[in-house]
Amino acid sequence: MYQFYYAPGSCSLAAQIALEISGAQYQSVKLDFRSNAQRESSYLAINPKGRVPALVCEQGVITENPAILLFLAQQYPDAGLAPLNDPFKLAQINAFNAYLSSTVHPAHAHGVRGYRWADDEAAIAEMKRKMPEVMAECFKTIESDMFEGPWVMGEDFSISDIYLFTIAQWLEADRVDITQFPKVMAHRSRMRELDVVKKVLAAQ
Amino acid sequence: MYQFYYAPGSCSLAAQIALEISGAQYQSVKLDFRSNAQRESSYLAINPKGRVPALVCEQGVITENPAILLFLAQQYPDAGLAPLNDPFKLAQINAFNAYLSSTVHPAHAHGVRGYRWADDEAAIAEMKRKMPEVMAECFKTIESDMFEGPWVMGEDFSISDIYLFTIAQWLEADRVDITQFPKVMAHRSRMRELDVVKKVLAAQ
Repeated sequence: MYQFYYAPGSCSLAAQIALEISGAQYQSVKLDFRSNAQRESSYLAINPKGRVPALVCEQGVITENPAILLFLAQQYPDAGLAPLNDPFKLAQINAFNAYLSSTVHPAHAHGVRGYRWADDEAAIAEMKRKMPEVMAECFKTIESDMFEGPWVMGEDFSISDIYLFTIAQWLEADRVDITQFPKVMAHRSRMRELDVVKKVLAAQ
Repeated sequence: MYQFYYAPGSCSLAAQIALEISGAQYQSVKLDFRSNAQRESSYLAINPKGRVPALVCEQGVITENPAILLFLAQQYPDAGLAPLNDPFKLAQINAFNAYLSSTVHPAHAHGVRGYRWADDEAAIAEMKRKMPEVMAECFKTIESDMFEGPWVMGEDFSISDIYLFTIAQWLEADRVDITQFPKVMAHRSRMRELDVVKKVLAAQ
């Protein structure tokens, strides 16, 4: 039985969908970002970075979506979440996930968490203003150059589909014109129809 | 024979050290960031994201350090770069690498590439001003909460050592007081003594 720390609306949705699909037994613990629960000492003892998701296993704590997603794919191979025996294909999935975590998610964070990189109010406002443009550029790259279709990696569903769906959920709130990305939007609609996704979204 | 695209002083150093340690056959292709070679159409055909590193394999192109590092660890198991048969330990490595790529590297990028997230000159200057403080916070977390010692994951050397070393190389230029991080600095010194690291640094 894992303990899974998450916050509604955050990127932890990806790990939670993967937990559901893999059939793992887990207990979820909601953190309220509005009261800054992720910065309380009880949570920092679990994840000193003060972020979600965090997955508490018997052996210890795993953080960061790319790591949790691959871990679940390896622990529950029957769920078919990654091509575990093909290092090149697996590298494509890890590269896609790394792009989401290192470029797309930080782009989004400039909209509401600009204080991470600036103290000056005007600078924070300027990041917020530019954020939709940066997010749109990221999704243009995904739409044109990275998305194979019908799933991210082509014929086979994988952890990259779960992670892309999670971040694509933010586009309207990020003031991005989603009509520019028909493939990504069709993918998002297909993901929303999955029972497991409906279940996780309802539970949040 | 791989083709490996890199830029001196960039994070591609990590992938290159891993290539050397793994004993892979590769041909390196240097991109001159000062002339913006990474944005030329010939390179964008290889990596549409316009970044390094990029590793061209027989089956296609792999980008992003966390993906390339794990790929090389899997392709060259004799090099002992990752605990391939222990999903939890591997997840710790992937989480560490994800933190470097998604939090630490973006923190650094605000020092010289603030234009990614703002157009206004004053906002870009403000990010540059705050950057050393953000990098210091990241390295405090690494020093206090993530670094096991003597290597990142404890007794066993791994791809996380290579990646940490690469980013720790930037600290002086990022105006960070390195005396705050004795464990990370001792690690960096040990890494610099490795013949393979000396070779790659000399070649750059």
